[in-house]
Amino acid sequence: MNEFELIQSYLAGLAGPEGLGLLDDVALWMPPHGMETVISTDTLVEGVHFLNGKFDSELAQKLIRSNVSDIVAKGSDPLGYMLSLTLNKQVREADIANFCEGLALDQQKFGLKLWGGDTTHTPGPNVLSVTIIGTVPSGETVKRSGAQNGDVVCVTGTIGDSHLGLKVTLNQRDILDFASNFDHWRHAYHKPDPPYKLRHGVRFFASAALDISDGLIADAGHLAKASNVSLAIDLDDIPLSRESSDWVNRQKDSTLARIALATGGDDYQVLLTVNPNKYDELVNISKACGVFMTQIGCVKLGKNVRVLDQKGDPLNIKKPGYMHFV
Amino acid sequence: MNEFELIQSYLAGLAGPEGLGLLDDVALWMPPHGMETVISTDTLVEGVHFLNGKFDSELAQKLIRSNVSDIVAKGSDPLGYMLSLTLNKQVREADIANFCEGLALDQQKFGLKLWGGDTTHTPGPNVLSVTIIGTVPSGETVKRSGAQNGDVVCVTGTIGDSHLGLKVTLNQRDILDFASNFDHWRHAYHKPDPPYKLRHGVRFFASAALDISDGLIADAGHLAKASNVSLAIDLDDIPLSRESSDWVNRQKDSTLARIALATGGDDYQVLLTVNPNKYDELVNISKACGVFMTQIGCVKLGKNVRVLDQKGDPLNIKKPGYMHFV
Repeated sequence: MNEFELIQSYLAGLAGPEGLGLLDDVALWMPPHGMETVISTDTLVEGVHFLNGKFDSELAQKLIRSNVSDIVAKGSDPLGYMLSLTLNKQVREADIANFCEGLALDQQKFGLKLWGGDTTHTPGPNVLSVTIIGTVPSGETVKRSGAQNGDVVCVTGTIGDSHLGLKVTLNQRDILDFASNFDHWRHAYHKPDPPYKLRHGVRFFASAALDISDGLIADAGHLAKASNVSLAIDLDDIPLSRESSDWVNRQKDSTLARIALATGGDDYQVLLTVNPNKYDELVNISKACGVFMTQIGCVKLGKNVRVLDQKGDPLNIKKPGYMHFV
Repeated sequence: MNEFELIQSYLAGLAGPEGLGLLDDVALWMPPHGMETVISTDTLVEGVHFLNGKFDSELAQKLIRSNVSDIVAKGSDPLGYMLSLTLNKQVREADIANFCEGLALDQQKFGLKLWGGDTTHTPGPNVLSVTIIGTVPSGETVKRSGAQNGDVVCVTGTIGDSHLGLKVTLNQRDILDFASNFDHWRHAYHKPDPPYKLRHGVRFFASAALDISDGLIADAGHLAKASNVSLAIDLDDIPLSRESSDWVNRQKDSTLARIALATGGDDYQVLLTVNPNKYDELVNISKACGVFMTQIGCVKLGKNVRVLDQKGDPLNIKKPGYMHFV
């Protein structure tokens, strides 16, 4: 199958009118008046972000969701995406069909359309890159840089399930006693669930926000740096699923276990700060959206993130999250 | 060097205000009123689009130019780009510094700014992907689909230099007699020169246009298909540089040599169609911009591309251009 057959057989059906039938080199989009554009790029590499040989609908969904997560965390509505597929010869036509089914499912779920992209081959690992485009009313984008001293620090969903899902996927021995939780964790790792329905709530109430991809503590550090404030986070307040609590409670050192979950990354939940006067409204709108919202700390004057134990003493966390080295 | 050091040391200085200092996950852009947005993605893979081990300012310039070329061919002004760098351990800090110098040079040349992106590592070949964003007054984007029966077919610049530049780069034996032309051809291959200054001329006068990346004949086929017309192209009218004419004239079969140049690709010139009544104006504006413009054929009713020899007889061209197989 050549690139044109792939595009016309599998991708053209996913395209919105902006994609010009994928017959042009470009997408053409008329931005709505009074809206600003939010653009984000996320790339997944075989053997780095996902297991060697994996190429299926789950991978497509992880690719879409890791990008949707960036847009949602800004209070923005995702609209379209450009898809760069760099594929090796191990990818068969059936894999592509499966992958495109995943794209179709998530396009439906998140109100997205394919606008264009590029398809190339590689002698190496598959590389998948998405540039996603969303809109938000002018001036209302929620940046990383808006946190104020005294704000409440919150997080959506539960944290760490994806980290344990990676252990399941890698068949790591320290997880083998928890087989009844595997499905839950695998699902969190392969099909993360960014709080799409809360995107307008984020826009109305958050002073700063970002999505958690590197690890909650590392990403809290990014927010603190951009906002020029300090974040104090209570380790025990970080929300865990029943399954992950079960895992924590059966580890020798539950503090170390909680730290592992808070630094594991790939959560694709939203970390946000909110003025304490708006906190109750944020909680109400989250409930209405079916999104779990938890206060985990507060914003203070200063720099960096302090993670506190049950007594309020700071913990020493050497590796706050995942980092690519180049 | 970790990804954050790379971003702050080398990339942040290239960012426009839309990039939010590369401290956020997103770019934020206020599209100007009354303009539509043109978006294109092009990906270059080590060992496929460029030689193994190459990572320098030339590579950055090829990456930028292959993307600018798409925008220019639509009559659009390039504004910003998202950069996905997927890099292996062979890339050293000095290579990155060199690469970023190339980005800076071409940002200046094409009025572009870096808006954001993603930096990841790979155990395989380097993969570089750019999503470029431009604007054009609403309704004035030049598509592939506007060619009309009776239009003139034109091309900018000269064709085939890049194909011979690839032969030089690969040290192919059949090119060794032409050492005095090597610099010219290498330059065309590594630093193609899309007709940026003619972008408004393309917008004012072209009925359809696209950039030549796969090969002139293949890309003419894409235009013919999107416009639902036939293109008749006179092989001998395809413009060659003095250096490439020299090569053609010293080949055993000059027709085959001309076909090789017309199907080699990587030219990043613009192929366009124009109403015959507007042709003279297009030629005048091209001269004023310093862009070489040549008529190479005409648009007819029908389908596909016919390439004609000196007698006007159709040639049988088996491989009209480069194609990725997946």
